[in-house]
Amino acid sequence: MTSLPEKAEAFRALHHGVHPLVLPNAWDVPSARLFEDAGFPAVATSSAGVMVSHGYPDGEEMPRRELLSVVARIAGRLSIPLSADLVAGYGRSSRDVSRTVELVVKAGAVGINIEDLHPSHDRLFRLETQLRRLEAVRHAAVSTGVPLVLNARTDAFRHATGDEPARLREAIRRASAYRDAGADCVYPMGLTDAASIATFVDALRCPVNVMVRKGLPPLLELERLGVKRVSFGPAASYAALGFLKRASRELLDRGSFDSLIEGAITFDELNQLAVARTPTSGS
Amino acid sequence: MTSLPEKAEAFRALHHGVHPLVLPNAWDVPSARLFEDAGFPAVATSSAGVMVSHGYPDGEEMPRRELLSVVARIAGRLSIPLSADLVAGYGRSSRDVSRTVELVVKAGAVGINIEDLHPSHDRLFRLETQLRRLEAVRHAAVSTGVPLVLNARTDAFRHATGDEPARLREAIRRASAYRDAGADCVYPMGLTDAASIATFVDALRCPVNVMVRKGLPPLLELERLGVKRVSFGPAASYAALGFLKRASRELLDRGSFDSLIEGAITFDELNQLAVARTPTSGS
Repeated sequence: MTSLPEKAEAFRALHHGVHPLVLPNAWDVPSARLFEDAGFPAVATSSAGVMVSHGYPDGEEMPRRELLSVVARIAGRLSIPLSADLVAGYGRSSRDVSRTVELVVKAGAVGINIEDLHPSHDRLFRLETQLRRLEAVRHAAVSTGVPLVLNARTDAFRHATGDEPARLREAIRRASAYRDAGADCVYPMGLTDAASIATFVDALRCPVNVMVRKGLPPLLELERLGVKRVSFGPAASYAALGFLKRASRELLDRGSFDSLIEGAITFDELNQLAVARTPTSGS
Repeated sequence: MTSLPEKAEAFRALHHGVHPLVLPNAWDVPSARLFEDAGFPAVATSSAGVMVSHGYPDGEEMPRRELLSVVARIAGRLSIPLSADLVAGYGRSSRDVSRTVELVVKAGAVGINIEDLHPSHDRLFRLETQLRRLEAVRHAAVSTGVPLVLNARTDAFRHATGDEPARLREAIRRASAYRDAGADCVYPMGLTDAASIATFVDALRCPVNVMVRKGLPPLLELERLGVKRVSFGPAASYAALGFLKRASRELLDRGSFDSLIEGAITFDELNQLAVARTPTSGS
């Protein structure tokens, strides 16, 4: 059994390899365990994926307690590191954010995402406010004894004022401040074109996370651009539900069960995804 | 808002149409809501799907309270009828089974599945025992005021003693007794070949449920055989996870995000699956 501090350091090291860390975001136990079995070295949660799966829209409407119980369920059945998306940290005060961090480490996460967009009115927190919140995160993490990996997300590229170059500059200004405040990785939400990513990575000179979405350059190009982490965000939820939608149409329009049968996993495989891997599990 | 008694009667009527009821089994809120939006007239839960999604193997290891909270979450966001898979009813005594039925109706289900296989040691309940349990179900249903639709499953075709014809005879004997005890539909687990299905349907002369699995005849042939209900069982869970497995391989082997992008639903579509349909939702 690897300890949480060891898992956290192993997860941190994955941000400094030659190749980018490809980090799949899961929403429940079997999606997380399947990513582990497929060979990904770590798994994250998708806030939108987890929340919608439990009947809440993305944001912070899902009570923190429920979100953390999902994190604990997943962490308890994974052998590899788990990073938790905490939206904006669940709390109006830095103190609330500290408490969220303590609880998520207790739930078994060794990494977190914290964003600078207010969860209910779609406005960026002031930079000074967000820096105080990140400071609270670092302090809380130290108190847990687990060297938590902090991925600091900025939504400035989508939500700051001004034209696109101005918003990119604001994203760089914020991410640089988050890096200096101790973030291990920074995450400019909405950046997909190669030129903007290159500008951002060159300015930051620390691990940068981009999210899988339409228009994102392929993995090899992202590596050339210096990206160190590529996360799915809610992409796997979108794709799995898109698949179900096609299978439903095929059945309702043509009476065919083929999409439900071909390429499906078995009952035994499904059941094995409910529990932790054993040394005899296949890879 | 349709009342639960009205939903139950509407669900019952779907078992007596010209075409079989195709009943998709979901495991969380978005899978259920997606099936509703696709046009299915009712949704069921898959016990294996729900349980594995929450980190429990299929059976009755998942506490009843947790299972019922998933049923309530799904029912609260569906406009169409929901049927809940209750495995063997969660309880050693008929009284426990009654309590489960009262609670599942309170959670918003208008139909249930109850099987005759003991959940922990894979042996069939004695027929007399199962009839007492089904009687308890009927009484509990009456006490709720909701005309609950009872789908009585027998595992005799897989778990009775003797050769295949003997096991089919035992499945017919049990299902006939369940029908006479008030089941609205009977469900011979494991029956997939057309000849056995025809024998079973002809002997029963009441609605019969078969499950989607490899080898099952196509929908049109099932209709000709007189089948009145075709449920997914865990098939959609198997298929969605098989899809994720392929997408993972494609990314890890070839660095391509294509399977995550093509045919995916959008962020707005995902968020709409967290909440009940509104009159303005697309069909």
